[in-house]
Amino acid sequence: MSKPYELTATEAIRLIQNRELSISEWVSSCFSRIKEKENVVKAWIYLDEENAIKKARELDNTNNSNLLGIPFGIKDIIDASDVPSGLGTPFYENNIPARDAASVAVAKESGCVFMGKTVSTELGHRAPGLTTNPHNKNHTPGGSSSGSAAAVSALMAPICFGTQTTGSVIRPAAYCGVIGYKPTYGDFDKSGILPNSPSIDTLGLISRSVEDISLFRSILLEEKLVEPKRINLKKLRIGFVKTPHWNKTDISTQNKLESFIETLRLEKFDITDLNIDKLISKADKLHVDVSGYEFKRSISYERFNHYNELSDILRNGRLSDGYQVTNELYKKAIKEVQVLKNDIDTVFNNIDLIITPSAPGEALKGIEYTGSALFNTTWSLCGNPCITIPLFRGDQNLPIGCQLVTKFGSDNQLLDYAKSLFELYLK
Amino acid sequence: MSKPYELTATEAIRLIQNRELSISEWVSSCFSRIKEKENVVKAWIYLDEENAIKKARELDNTNNSNLLGIPFGIKDIIDASDVPSGLGTPFYENNIPARDAASVAVAKESGCVFMGKTVSTELGHRAPGLTTNPHNKNHTPGGSSSGSAAAVSALMAPICFGTQTTGSVIRPAAYCGVIGYKPTYGDFDKSGILPNSPSIDTLGLISRSVEDISLFRSILLEEKLVEPKRINLKKLRIGFVKTPHWNKTDISTQNKLESFIETLRLEKFDITDLNIDKLISKADKLHVDVSGYEFKRSISYERFNHYNELSDILRNGRLSDGYQVTNELYKKAIKEVQVLKNDIDTVFNNIDLIITPSAPGEALKGIEYTGSALFNTTWSLCGNPCITIPLFRGDQNLPIGCQLVTKFGSDNQLLDYAKSLFELYLK
Repeated sequence: MSKPYELTATEAIRLIQNRELSISEWVSSCFSRIKEKENVVKAWIYLDEENAIKKARELDNTNNSNLLGIPFGIKDIIDASDVPSGLGTPFYENNIPARDAASVAVAKESGCVFMGKTVSTELGHRAPGLTTNPHNKNHTPGGSSSGSAAAVSALMAPICFGTQTTGSVIRPAAYCGVIGYKPTYGDFDKSGILPNSPSIDTLGLISRSVEDISLFRSILLEEKLVEPKRINLKKLRIGFVKTPHWNKTDISTQNKLESFIETLRLEKFDITDLNIDKLISKADKLHVDVSGYEFKRSISYERFNHYNELSDILRNGRLSDGYQVTNELYKKAIKEVQVLKNDIDTVFNNIDLIITPSAPGEALKGIEYTGSALFNTTWSLCGNPCITIPLFRGDQNLPIGCQLVTKFGSDNQLLDYAKSLFELYLK
Repeated sequence: MSKPYELTATEAIRLIQNRELSISEWVSSCFSRIKEKENVVKAWIYLDEENAIKKARELDNTNNSNLLGIPFGIKDIIDASDVPSGLGTPFYENNIPARDAASVAVAKESGCVFMGKTVSTELGHRAPGLTTNPHNKNHTPGGSSSGSAAAVSALMAPICFGTQTTGSVIRPAAYCGVIGYKPTYGDFDKSGILPNSPSIDTLGLISRSVEDISLFRSILLEEKLVEPKRINLKKLRIGFVKTPHWNKTDISTQNKLESFIETLRLEKFDITDLNIDKLISKADKLHVDVSGYEFKRSISYERFNHYNELSDILRNGRLSDGYQVTNELYKKAIKEVQVLKNDIDTVFNNIDLIITPSAPGEALKGIEYTGSALFNTTWSLCGNPCITIPLFRGDQNLPIGCQLVTKFGSDNQLLDYAKSLFELYLK
């Protein structure tokens, strides 16, 4: 039998309901796993073990099957009450919020067990923490949701919260060989999460099964679970989008994705080579202006009070971009984003599902650079739901994700497609 | 000569630059005024006098005329570092944020002097604090930016920050006989401000002069001041919008506004009676769904941890509205809002300026009810810039505001129009 920490949330809950596992055993098992692996993976910045174990025991005693007991971790730029919010910096050790982020409050209310805070890059931007890739400690886990992706990949937690402004959920999940899901913009609340670029920022989920994503989505929406369905993928109109950045992907990503698409075509899937390069290039440009301008504003306190403690990558990166953008240019960009969103919406009138790389390749060697978000910018800016599923392995034997994208608002369909494709490919 | 606390920021800065006034004298004078009036007005929940005076002295010593020294207060749902954020509730006395809200950080960086926190309604919704209307203590100051409007009206501070999700800047400013300005959605950053309904929430300013609004707008945008210009209003295409709620305004508001419009018409202003009732009714309905859904989510921590301490007006008002809205309905509403925004934009293709009531009448008697936001909902939902200027007095000798609205993004024009109309009417 699997050890409890190896289970997905959906599997563990089934065992708990059959009285073959207790919530305490599950939670304790996750913390044991952390003790075993954390030394190398360094996924966590704060562990709340004592309270988590206490909460798990209380849940076992209530015997209320509506209280699910799922242990979860949250990225360090997300607030939990009475626990330090370091925001991925060394200067916020004493920042202890009085309130849970709304998403954390909702998860706790449904009986989920808060485990602690996972490593974030600096202020959710690019300067990395110490986390390593669980598949090879000499490689980056990706970022900015580095610790969340690594913790789930290393079987320390079944699910963790991440956030995405460019590629900060999809990329680390792909690099760490797990599932990363960024919902439709606006679906998950962001109260109590450090804003980076509020018109783009999205709370996302990282897990090891599509069912767990659906389950946690229902928890955060406070709605009845919509279970992902196995559907006939041959009925879908699928667009394969190489993007203008295809030549920046490594050879193994190109080969794996192309041969996967070829296999599906041979099996009579309806797949079009979809060229939306112009829209993607437009999104890339607009994303720089909008995210730069908004980021510069959001971190004003740090800009003025901790400038010398900020990394060069932040000061010379998005912050510097932000200083180039006037309010007039920003508002012009915001209007153009609206036009772009409509254009992307129109693309999905003729396409049910886009398949595209999750990242340019396997996780890069070294932990200094969290990798490129070239394949994520458009979907972040336009707010489309997307998910990465770990379908391939590259030349360095590291995971390669496959990104699926659907129309704005079609999250349940996306999860159906992801489940179906994942199961099909693993069969 | 005027006492320093009576001055607008623009006037005081001129005196300071001419060495006829020091920043310390200005700031001290505002605190003296608070001591004189606060007993009755109750505009402040927290005063930071000692630090403010210290900062003012430092500024006087630096002798740097770029550091403006403007004393300002902020609504209690806006964070200031190391100062309690009570969020308009009794249960957050110990909520002491580590960071300034971005807008506060930017203001401080430009040499503005933080005076303290003004009374907010509960969580920025409707349950009032103890603030009274400076024009008559038996009347409401309006809400939710109650303390900010009252403090500016009572000459305690030249400018204060408020926020608006429905009518929370325009209405209290109108009731208190001062200027309230809600910029284009997205113009002012909201990091560190308690979200109510993030797709609508807007940081606004309350002051006693249009020049001060322009000045503080330039501070928050970190851009060069665009001084409001006196323009020829006869060249504008003006729409007089009574809205479907005209019959809910009191007689003095109707008479004052109609005779004002009549005067302008006699002077050959180009004024159309503009009927956009259908759009306004649509906005009213969509606002309930969007703000209810988002508010319910934003205050999840309070919902689950302080439910019994919340007011009935909150539990049975917007929170109850929010519980009626599913994620599917919400997303449908968000799409409809986008269509509505485009329709409103189209209205402004043929109209430069809309004149419409700021509120249904004078401030209501009693401080239990902060008044109706019927005349503000559309502009909050659609993100148009708007301003209220105190042009009239009603039957109870309380102020009545006149609301001006322009196209999304036309804030500088709005401020030109407001200055011109205000000066024209006062001449």
